Amino acid sequence: MTASPSAQPFKANELEKTGKPKLAFRPLLVPQVDVHGFWGDRADAVASATAGILYDRCVEARMLEQIDPDRPSPGVVIPFHVSDGFTARTVTTQMFWDSDWGKTIETAAYSLYRRKNPELEKKIDAVIDMYEKLQRPDGYLSSWYQRIQPGLRWTNLRDCHELYCAGHLIEGAVAYYQATGKRKLLDVMCRFVDHIATVLGPQPGQKHGYCGHEEIELALVKLARVTGEQKYMELAKYFIDQRGQQPHYFDEEARARGADPKDFHFKTYEYNQSHIPVREQDKVVGHAVRAMYLYSGMADIATEYGDDTLRAALDRLWDDLTTKSLYITGGLGPSADNEGFTSDYDLPNESAYAETCAAVGLVFWASRMLGMGPNARYADMMERALYNGSISGLSLDGSLFFYENPLESRGAHNRWKWHRCPCCPPNIGRMVASIGSYFYSLADDAVAVHLYGDSTARFDISGVPVSLTQASRYPWDGAVGITLEPQAPVEFTLHLRIPDWSASAELAVNGDPVNLDDVTSDGYAAIRRTWKKGDQVRLDLEMPIERLYANPQVRQDAGRVALSRGPLIYCVEATDNESQLHRLTLPRTAPVEAQLRPELLGGVVTLSTTAQADAGDGWQSGLYRPEPPATTQTRLTAIPYFAWDNRESGEMLVWLRDG
Amino acid sequence: MTASPSAQPFKANELEKTGKPKLAFRPLLVPQVDVHGFWGDRADAVASATAGILYDRCVEARMLEQIDPDRPSPGVVIPFHVSDGFTARTVTTQMFWDSDWGKTIETAAYSLYRRKNPELEKKIDAVIDMYEKLQRPDGYLSSWYQRIQPGLRWTNLRDCHELYCAGHLIEGAVAYYQATGKRKLLDVMCRFVDHIATVLGPQPGQKHGYCGHEEIELALVKLARVTGEQKYMELAKYFIDQRGQQPHYFDEEARARGADPKDFHFKTYEYNQSHIPVREQDKVVGHAVRAMYLYSGMADIATEYGDDTLRAALDRLWDDLTTKSLYITGGLGPSADNEGFTSDYDLPNESAYAETCAAVGLVFWASRMLGMGPNARYADMMERALYNGSISGLSLDGSLFFYENPLESRGAHNRWKWHRCPCCPPNIGRMVASIGSYFYSLADDAVAVHLYGDSTARFDISGVPVSLTQASRYPWDGAVGITLEPQAPVEFTLHLRIPDWSASAELAVNGDPVNLDDVTSDGYAAIRRTWKKGDQVRLDLEMPIERLYANPQVRQDAGRVALSRGPLIYCVEATDNESQLHRLTLPRTAPVEAQLRPELLGGVVTLSTTAQADAGDGWQSGLYRPEPPATTQTRLTAIPYFAWDNRESGEMLVWLRDG
Repeated sequence: MTASPSAQPFKANELEKTGKPKLAFRPLLVPQVDVHGFWGDRADAVASATAGILYDRCVEARMLEQIDPDRPSPGVVIPFHVSDGFTARTVTTQMFWDSDWGKTIETAAYSLYRRKNPELEKKIDAVIDMYEKLQRPDGYLSSWYQRIQPGLRWTNLRDCHELYCAGHLIEGAVAYYQATGKRKLLDVMCRFVDHIATVLGPQPGQKHGYCGHEEIELALVKLARVTGEQKYMELAKYFIDQRGQQPHYFDEEARARGADPKDFHFKTYEYNQSHIPVREQDKVVGHAVRAMYLYSGMADIATEYGDDTLRAALDRLWDDLTTKSLYITGGLGPSADNEGFTSDYDLPNESAYAETCAAVGLVFWASRMLGMGPNARYADMMERALYNGSISGLSLDGSLFFYENPLESRGAHNRWKWHRCPCCPPNIGRMVASIGSYFYSLADDAVAVHLYGDSTARFDISGVPVSLTQASRYPWDGAVGITLEPQAPVEFTLHLRIPDWSASAELAVNGDPVNLDDVTSDGYAAIRRTWKKGDQVRLDLEMPIERLYANPQVRQDAGRVALSRGPLIYCVEATDNESQLHRLTLPRTAPVEAQLRPELLGGVVTLSTTAQADAGDGWQSGLYRPEPPATTQTRLTAIPYFAWDNRESGEMLVWLRDG
Repeated sequence: MTASPSAQPFKANELEKTGKPKLAFRPLLVPQVDVHGFWGDRADAVASATAGILYDRCVEARMLEQIDPDRPSPGVVIPFHVSDGFTARTVTTQMFWDSDWGKTIETAAYSLYRRKNPELEKKIDAVIDMYEKLQRPDGYLSSWYQRIQPGLRWTNLRDCHELYCAGHLIEGAVAYYQATGKRKLLDVMCRFVDHIATVLGPQPGQKHGYCGHEEIELALVKLARVTGEQKYMELAKYFIDQRGQQPHYFDEEARARGADPKDFHFKTYEYNQSHIPVREQDKVVGHAVRAMYLYSGMADIATEYGDDTLRAALDRLWDDLTTKSLYITGGLGPSADNEGFTSDYDLPNESAYAETCAAVGLVFWASRMLGMGPNARYADMMERALYNGSISGLSLDGSLFFYENPLESRGAHNRWKWHRCPCCPPNIGRMVASIGSYFYSLADDAVAVHLYGDSTARFDISGVPVSLTQASRYPWDGAVGITLEPQAPVEFTLHLRIPDWSASAELAVNGDPVNLDDVTSDGYAAIRRTWKKGDQVRLDLEMPIERLYANPQVRQDAGRVALSRGPLIYCVEATDNESQLHRLTLPRTAPVEAQLRPELLGGVVTLSTTAQADAGDGWQSGLYRPEPPATTQTRLTAIPYFAWDNRESGEMLVWLRDG
């Protein structure tokens, strides 16, 4: 199923040329981990379907009209834009078409590790050739500003995604270079960033600005790491440090283009997290994806510079998000109005925006928080977002997409072939295609296992090549067998996450039980020893079916209960249940059974139980009556949330009535 | 508290000059009933506050900007419009400013019966003078089309409310003539209707059209009744009969003005109930107020012409509304998108649109269904809408208004001084000011008491003047004492509604018990006898506190319970309760107590009980956990729904969690 990279394979040790402090724990690179089982299936869907679909959609002319005639598009999208109906005042989702390309290139790059695809690689090469040709002699590169709004570059960082697009092209360039060894786009983007660094920065005569949509910060960290050029890290840090400082750049920029700073569609700079300097922030606010990307960049800079002031802000923000504003699915950002946060504990289910990109962004942020070392506080939440609110955004076959990920549906919320704001498809694509890098992270003399699942990882530790193989049916079963095969005996610490959802866990090394209480801190068991070829670690995570209840501050979940098993949040869908879903009550005492159903949805464990259903007898004469409805017993069957809307359309519900 | 009309009082027997079949039961006229007690307080608020406020708001220039700077108005409103920013293509709420005047005149007229107000009467006279001056020599009258879009009259009946405005001015003219004897506006409107009848109608060369917003149909019936001119009745019948016929007038009209009929903002003619001929309709659809006004007009025509085909359609529509689409408050039309109906059993609480005008419209329709004779099927629902979802739209002091009447609020839904679409304030004003006419209806040898409450009615029956006085603390108490004082003994049937909510009722005449089973049909007890001066009827309606449950098809009320007592639906407000409202559960077994609180909200009966509240202990570390929340006992206090948001802002909830 996996294949070698199709061109010169990227070597891990080329990555770290910078003289700055390294990550304490660095994620393994995508090609270092072969995933099978659950994530293997997801990654195969991306490699065989999604990656090609992303390319096709990005090049299709007037694609939205063609694909979905009922949803007229506000504009057109064709390669490198044609000036058709746009004016100098236009602000449209099409401004960030370059970012779709960046993520598409990134998805394709990661997918090449999994499946050779010379045809797709050739197409991507051609796209990169076009970008090379488009680049101005001074290094500037933006298909929108060059084709549609020439002369307006660097006049509206607040709204127009100019640096955001650069960021995604950088990420694409890094990934494509790593996967193929081809550095044309990497060189293009280095030239562009060198140009950016002349325009924006702290020096007199430079614009003291940053992007309204964060993204370039984390991308510059990647660029610095892959090129060893500290100047890119410095630029990332500048954007982080400068954000929200006074005088406010977006005020000055608006006045410079003759606009009133108050004439901002989203009213408050909380929308783009520039309301106050980032180190003073303690509430997650505004556009959810922007927030996640900002915090990801802050986490990178905190790690790279050992900056505890950033780290303290990130911990406050993490607390705020996870105790007040996170859906049980790991989704976030309840409101369509600002694509983001509203007020504490406001988590509507049916109207949840919970954009796929936002959950993906939470995975990015959480994984970066693990750079400081294993801590289940972050990894548990990363797993929650991965298995639920992010991959719900991609159909099982990799061909259809959700933008919003509600927790309740009457049946009319269905997957799109594409979206007029197509940020989510390539975002979930690149995340799934690079899933291996979220499994493990590596320090000088330690390796941490954050995620479980059938997979093989290869890495060097203290100069010794090591292979680590997990045999597991996770997430369907909590038994994990780990086989270590160092080429020579080598001492290091193996950190194993003990998920918070596991009621009890048993650990054994070569058959000898290990007392978890003795070795566990921050939710990770640490086993330090000299590992030899064939050493066996056995971890048995009890995977109980749980009823979960929300903090009573969450009005929308009052009197409700959700089902989970292991990392998976469950939902009920109409097709598996006889009653209308809102009529169901789940009695607290009803035993819930898990059943592996290999034939269902690519093979899932369902949960089922006996529930009560409100009966409709005797309501002929009116809508309201003094007698409560009679109830009947019925069978309730739940499936993992991520797999919903992969069959016929129908109702879906996560939060059941608690009885 | 009440006063004689300020000019020549209108005489009831002038009303009926038409030779057509009369109403079996005709409502008493406003001046024939003096209301005291509950409705007296409401009517006083309208007479002393609302009526003057309506006038002031209608004449204020740029009023919305002045009143509520946070909600910018799309246009300006000054007397008879000034062409400021409007174009020939403008479609705006300001097009129906004449209708606001019509309802304001009507409210003022009814209020003059209650309280002399020479100052207001003088102002209304001046407005009428302006309309007289505005009228074109051919009879045409529309401040919008004459001032803002000259030359475009009769080109867009679908969207532009031209006949709707005429209808409201007709209703205002009739009421003002009846209250003051002044017939200037009545004559103006007769001339306008005579002109309308030349433009629209079945003859070749006429436009075969009708209004997109129904209203003129019921207004023409009033005009026919007050003038005795059958031609106005015929025009009303034409508009009813023609609606929804093919070829569709709105298609033809659109093409005639060079527009594509498909380019209709609301997509479907269900929006204005013209999708099929009215006699074929069996589902309430589209804009809720339009629907109610159409059905009201249909009911009038059904009665006037003895048209059973219309009656059959109305019964189907009544069934559909009351069994599938009516809030427990008597509110209707859940969606803001079409200001109307969505799908069966879709009754969201927090986002309920439930426009005040729609509940008022339901009162209009229900009262007209009683023209065929006493039937609690209609009168019970009229009472429900009157006491709950309609008067909720007016603050207790008559000065502030709701447009939407949700059944749940987080505290941010508060009353307006005015609204950019100001249809509701004068609508609730005119309904309350004319409340007496909904209490009673009269046939040749019968009188029906539909509503109870402290009041005195005067009417002639078989040529004998009769006074009927109710002594009652209704709706706070179900005991009703009725004293009849005919000037001479006279035989007639007294119909008394036995409300469906009353678990049992006792009836006595001059102290002699009457077996209700023997005399009750269609929910009305009928007592036929020769009534003499001083005859006493005693009706004791048991007024139990009820827990009410919704049909399980209503997803938004699943697992919920509402409290009622007599005609009143109750709600809980934050100010009376310690817990957040969504945390409360009302146990099924908890006894609920009623308490008269004279000091509260002008004097209301509250309901209170011991409830359970979800406690917030132990949720520091996250949003979700396997243990359900602990519960604590708390006191729950509910107030009548109509009285909510008359104190400090805060949460409100009708449907409590059922425990």
